[in-house]
Amino acid sequence: MDFTPSSRSREYLERLQEFMRAEVEPVEAAYLAALREGADDNRADRWTVSPEIRRLQEKARDAGLWNLFMPDETYGVGLSNVEYAPLAEAMGRSAIAPVVFNCAAPDTGNMEVLYHYGSEEQRQRWMVPLLEGRIRSAFCMTEPDVASSDATNMAATAVLDGDEVVLNGRKWWSTGIAHPDCEVLIFMGVTDPGAHRYLRHSMVLVPRDTPGVRVERMLPTMGFYDEPGGHGEVSFTDVRLPASAIIAGPGRGFEIAQGRLGPGRVHHCMRLIGLAERALELACRRGVGRTAFGKPLVNLGGNRERIADARIAIQQARLLVLHTAWLLDTEGIGAALSAVSQIKVAVPTMAQQVVDMAIQLHGGAGLSNDFPLAGAWTTARAIRLADGPDEVHRGVVARLELAPYLEEAR
Amino acid sequence: MDFTPSSRSREYLERLQEFMRAEVEPVEAAYLAALREGADDNRADRWTVSPEIRRLQEKARDAGLWNLFMPDETYGVGLSNVEYAPLAEAMGRSAIAPVVFNCAAPDTGNMEVLYHYGSEEQRQRWMVPLLEGRIRSAFCMTEPDVASSDATNMAATAVLDGDEVVLNGRKWWSTGIAHPDCEVLIFMGVTDPGAHRYLRHSMVLVPRDTPGVRVERMLPTMGFYDEPGGHGEVSFTDVRLPASAIIAGPGRGFEIAQGRLGPGRVHHCMRLIGLAERALELACRRGVGRTAFGKPLVNLGGNRERIADARIAIQQARLLVLHTAWLLDTEGIGAALSAVSQIKVAVPTMAQQVVDMAIQLHGGAGLSNDFPLAGAWTTARAIRLADGPDEVHRGVVARLELAPYLEEAR
Amino acid sequence: MDFTPSSRSREYLERLQEFMRAEVEPVEAAYLAALREGADDNRADRWTVSPEIRRLQEKARDAGLWNLFMPDETYGVGLSNVEYAPLAEAMGRSAIAPVVFNCAAPDTGNMEVLYHYGSEEQRQRWMVPLLEGRIRSAFCMTEPDVASSDATNMAATAVLDGDEVVLNGRKWWSTGIAHPDCEVLIFMGVTDPGAHRYLRHSMVLVPRDTPGVRVERMLPTMGFYDEPGGHGEVSFTDVRLPASAIIAGPGRGFEIAQGRLGPGRVHHCMRLIGLAERALELACRRGVGRTAFGKPLVNLGGNRERIADARIAIQQARLLVLHTAWLLDTEGIGAALSAVSQIKVAVPTMAQQVVDMAIQLHGGAGLSNDFPLAGAWTTARAIRLADGPDEVHRGVVARLELAPYLEEAR
Amino acid sequence: MDFTPSSRSREYLERLQEFMRAEVEPVEAAYLAALREGADDNRADRWTVSPEIRRLQEKARDAGLWNLFMPDETYGVGLSNVEYAPLAEAMGRSAIAPVVFNCAAPDTGNMEVLYHYGSEEQRQRWMVPLLEGRIRSAFCMTEPDVASSDATNMAATAVLDGDEVVLNGRKWWSTGIAHPDCEVLIFMGVTDPGAHRYLRHSMVLVPRDTPGVRVERMLPTMGFYDEPGGHGEVSFTDVRLPASAIIAGPGRGFEIAQGRLGPGRVHHCMRLIGLAERALELACRRGVGRTAFGKPLVNLGGNRERIADARIAIQQARLLVLHTAWLLDTEGIGAALSAVSQIKVAVPTMAQQVVDMAIQLHGGAGLSNDFPLAGAWTTARAIRLADGPDEVHRGVVARLELAPYLEEAR
Repeated sequence: MDFTPSSRSREYLERLQEFMRAEVEPVEAAYLAALREGADDNRADRWTVSPEIRRLQEKARDAGLWNLFMPDETYGVGLSNVEYAPLAEAMGRSAIAPVVFNCAAPDTGNMEVLYHYGSEEQRQRWMVPLLEGRIRSAFCMTEPDVASSDATNMAATAVLDGDEVVLNGRKWWSTGIAHPDCEVLIFMGVTDPGAHRYLRHSMVLVPRDTPGVRVERMLPTMGFYDEPGGHGEVSFTDVRLPASAIIAGPGRGFEIAQGRLGPGRVHHCMRLIGLAERALELACRRGVGRTAFGKPLVNLGGNRERIADARIAIQQARLLVLHTAWLLDTEGIGAALSAVSQIKVAVPTMAQQVVDMAIQLHGGAGLSNDFPLAGAWTTARAIRLADGPDEVHRGVVARLELAPYLEEAR
Repeated sequence: MDFTPSSRSREYLERLQEFMRAEVEPVEAAYLAALREGADDNRADRWTVSPEIRRLQEKARDAGLWNLFMPDETYGVGLSNVEYAPLAEAMGRSAIAPVVFNCAAPDTGNMEVLYHYGSEEQRQRWMVPLLEGRIRSAFCMTEPDVASSDATNMAATAVLDGDEVVLNGRKWWSTGIAHPDCEVLIFMGVTDPGAHRYLRHSMVLVPRDTPGVRVERMLPTMGFYDEPGGHGEVSFTDVRLPASAIIAGPGRGFEIAQGRLGPGRVHHCMRLIGLAERALELACRRGVGRTAFGKPLVNLGGNRERIADARIAIQQARLLVLHTAWLLDTEGIGAALSAVSQIKVAVPTMAQQVVDMAIQLHGGAGLSNDFPLAGAWTTARAIRLADGPDEVHRGVVARLELAPYLEEAR
Repeated sequence: MDFTPSSRSREYLERLQEFMRAEVEPVEAAYLAALREGADDNRADRWTVSPEIRRLQEKARDAGLWNLFMPDETYGVGLSNVEYAPLAEAMGRSAIAPVVFNCAAPDTGNMEVLYHYGSEEQRQRWMVPLLEGRIRSAFCMTEPDVASSDATNMAATAVLDGDEVVLNGRKWWSTGIAHPDCEVLIFMGVTDPGAHRYLRHSMVLVPRDTPGVRVERMLPTMGFYDEPGGHGEVSFTDVRLPASAIIAGPGRGFEIAQGRLGPGRVHHCMRLIGLAERALELACRRGVGRTAFGKPLVNLGGNRERIADARIAIQQARLLVLHTAWLLDTEGIGAALSAVSQIKVAVPTMAQQVVDMAIQLHGGAGLSNDFPLAGAWTTARAIRLADGPDEVHRGVVARLELAPYLEEAR
Repeated sequence: MDFTPSSRSREYLERLQEFMRAEVEPVEAAYLAALREGADDNRADRWTVSPEIRRLQEKARDAGLWNLFMPDETYGVGLSNVEYAPLAEAMGRSAIAPVVFNCAAPDTGNMEVLYHYGSEEQRQRWMVPLLEGRIRSAFCMTEPDVASSDATNMAATAVLDGDEVVLNGRKWWSTGIAHPDCEVLIFMGVTDPGAHRYLRHSMVLVPRDTPGVRVERMLPTMGFYDEPGGHGEVSFTDVRLPASAIIAGPGRGFEIAQGRLGPGRVHHCMRLIGLAERALELACRRGVGRTAFGKPLVNLGGNRERIADARIAIQQARLLVLHTAWLLDTEGIGAALSAVSQIKVAVPTMAQQVVDMAIQLHGGAGLSNDFPLAGAWTTARAIRLADGPDEVHRGVVARLELAPYLEEAR
């Protein structure tokens, strides 16, 4: 169990932190100040990319702080999960950093899908521009009308018709769909309902402008629209594509989804550690700086105990994530199934609680946009549902825990 | 301890519930549908009142379902707290109902201030139009730059100058300030910083259009702006008014604030019981109606236990609120100090947890505006801070609990 | 919802409290002092009744503070549940009081069984001496080898053989079995395994000295043996009795068990409120009286918040119990099924937490016998399992909550 | 952050586990069976050592599984904290294992005190026989009459009188004092009340049979006496010893206490991980093996989620302990102050909760001595108080967390 980041990882971390301090934090402060002004809410340009972000992206790419998530040296820097973890944590401190470094969901997951399962043509057409940050993408899996935690519920279809595939159905929580650079969607649908439950689905690459693809509406989470990418409800009506748009061939959708979700969950959790650290910092600073009843807030009631509990919770969560990263690096996803579900349960809940504590110490300001806490809470809360709700992951952990006892009892 | 609502209260409840079913729920559904369309977010008319609401208000007034909160028969129907509790609960189920029945914060609290402390002239000028629903009001107490849970921190001033009073300072979380009908603000400021800590402040009635009053910006809570009233940050710069605008005379601001906040807290808690009941209903309906892994959601994992825990938590909270109402009715605020703080701690936290559970059962839909859950969570969370954060109220409960032991130990 | 105790109940309460102060508390203090000496642990006479207790019982009976639980005026004082609740709470403050006033489990439940279901002969032979405190009894239902929360698991048998009934099986947690005055056991066993699941069992009155009844061992809970009654594991081997020993006839065991457990659960919960109040008192007194780091303990860290949370939790639990008592009085057990299960979940858990908090404030002393806290914790913890574990009662609450939605969904 | 145990550690672990399986578990099973019989409670020989334990100790020593805690190769095997952690965890699974391998509190802590601070003569006289398991020891620090979490409260005195030191005072929770082999006590008292608060105390080695040392009584924790060592209340009346009995000279008591408690806390936590694992195993086995309502218990309600939560909690706690061990090994106690307090808060609470869950799944059996759960709960609960209550350690964590912010705010 060696979680020590390599010297290469440490070096990236130093440069990343320096970049964050020098470049990202000032822009983020300006971004928050704009929110403070209330200017943001009704602005006409909410679904466009600020030139500041584009400038930072260019700068990050030039600095080689780009695609750090990509485990292949040809396409990124080839870091292991343990090496990437502290970098993802550092990015997770900021709402804009992951995009700046081209390490944001859902693009990272989509690039990984293309990397692992895409044909050479698919890689060239979609993965390369994604890696270069020239285009962005969306992932269309969850559906509004069924409990999507159970893949067998999926109603959308991807039916073969000669050498074409025809898509129908309705998806939502398609993150990034409103982004002006979004050019491709990965769509999951049922191809062969009679096949084994793990062999029914296909994943299809859908150019954003294909006829029949329609963004019905953009969805808020707790009132936030996460512009400019947002989360959309998208209908697919007789969307017709060449069969070559299917990733890895028909029937492999479930397998690809599993492969995609694993690292995605780990990256979410790595970033949430940073988010929670940021919230704890804000809580400490507020608690020390504000005074009531003649004392700094932090010396009132149970506030010091809350700070301590947050520190303990973050530290435990970080170690659990690092351990999972190490398992993935050394033994692969097969040995890490329980660990991935464990962090998916533990980390977002921890982050939600730490942020809630920080909000409380900030009073009303904590619920406004004067601090990044309301947004942070929403992120953590949403991830308790995204990529499988807590309850499903607890089920996975329990199943693996109980397996030997069930075996023994047989 | 008799919490039985009177026959009059039961009769009002029946009529209120019927009105809710027949009139409010359809409008609310349309309102939610508009939100679903995503049309709401950028609409030009967000700070205006929908004609539907005005129509419902008129209908409610005609039906005598109006000012039910007002404990004086001359001005309202003269219900006791125990009698009003089930009515407030019924209104709390809906985000729009309190306004429909003219029972919404901050107007209720402001009307009560005027009722208890206002001069006849102040009552005629402001209270009567408020009771008639012709105007609305805001309450300006909390300040952005200090921990406002400690009133001695207040920086805003209300300085006497001859027969005038001059207001300066910055307030925020001034609820209702953006409402087009908002015509009066109640402002609290320091008049005599050298006086006893409970005799320093004054409350001043400020016409909305007085020179020097400026809404700096509107504040979101978790991304929600609570249109059309909203919550504003308001600056007061040399706002000059006749000294007769001071409520009950200089130096009585603290006393009035205490008097205002008590019933306000109780009303918040009564409504939150209804909010939590609504969330539990939605959770049950969703849990029964959606299927995953071959079972209704409610039969998966610990979901039934969550339903049970929610029921138990709501029922305990309701009884605590009723008991507090009964104490207020029979023994007055002096005997109910601990009880009021107890419900202020227990009820919003309970509501927050029940709504969070309901969100989880709804998946992503629970975080969107397709259900009233995201808004409900925000309401409950905000009330954990409004009118004094949990921690301050825990302090009150502990102080009163420990008093006899400290006496004994002396 | 009128929880006001009647004037009769208030009068009993005053006398009871006076008796507690004057008679019970000194004896209890001496009892605790003996435990402090460590004399208790190895004493030869642990399964005998102290003469002090016998003296107090006599005094209580003479004072008319006797059988207060009994809802029939012929046999007791005929108090309703709402009237009895404050009396039970007062008794629950002390580990010895319920016995002093002849209101202790399992005798109360057994007397109620005999009262409701016993023949005149059974009442005369067993109920009357129990009411007089001349004998004591045990209840033999739970079995060591099966999950007894599911009655259909029951393995013990009560087989009819001519005009006799023959008992076989093994029971445990038979409370009171070691008491020197224990003269009768109520045994539950399967009579007709082919009958409907609710019509299979019989309840049989077994004289303690019947051949084939054998106490295999006494069981500790958390190291406590609860002398002199204790909890036993009891084997029944071909125990042969006249069929007239069956209560209410063969096949009614399940019905009687349900009838018996309801009030038993309510009484447990009433007493636990008193137990928690006692623990909170001890916590306050300790927190005020001990000093560390220059402050009374109660002013350190989150201790005041803990005191407040305990007060809020107790008050909510008390109201839930009173509401349940009121439901039982006014609408009967049928309308109170969910309420009874609700208190069974909420109250012991609350008491366990409050006592745990009090233990923590007492340091090591809290875990010793210098304070009644270790025993109190054990009582609360055990009741989370006794009469159905929390999980089963959550299941009942959820089933009743969901019933209308399931109906609606049909 | 490399928590990988060395090959030496892994080899020890294998041998230890084999020894546990082959030797300890059968003896422990017999020990539990004796408890089941109820024979234990009144036995005359409760304060004696069973010959079985002596036999196992001999066998363990012969096998080289002895003094594994001792970080010095001359006296033990010289393992680092990271190397020792898995061994301590393995021992922690059993109530008797730590004694079998001569790795039990309070002897380990006392040996470490002598190792780090003892004179050569003190080491020869006391440490060597302790290392050989020929004698045992007690540690007398906590006092009944003051809040001992604050060392400045200490009332006991160790006054210099010429070349002698005279001890007076009353201590309690002196673990091991009743053990027939207990030959030495380490006593802490105030020598110079006028000195700096960290320089007032002395630690004195007191032969058990010194005149004036009197065991006043043995203390139970939750009804358990932890025979044969137990926990005693001990009075010291004019206990006179040569000044050479002072460890490291007068005034160094506080320093030694700090040095002693650090590793002690870490060892407690390491063992508690094993305890919690054992409880989870028992819960899984029971949950799979028992049936109610037609299903194994584990498939009822939220039980699977409970199993998952326990697994997640244990894994997080284990990693936090390993990280602390690694910090101690690589950077020393100075860098690990917060980490040691973090595990002291997190691990016993986690263990208490996991054991409580396991008890609940066992029904009444979980509270009896039929399973080691009641004892395990008591151990975890007691450690939340021993070596500083949770609240004090939260205070340490918060102080270190807030230090930079306070610095910054200055």
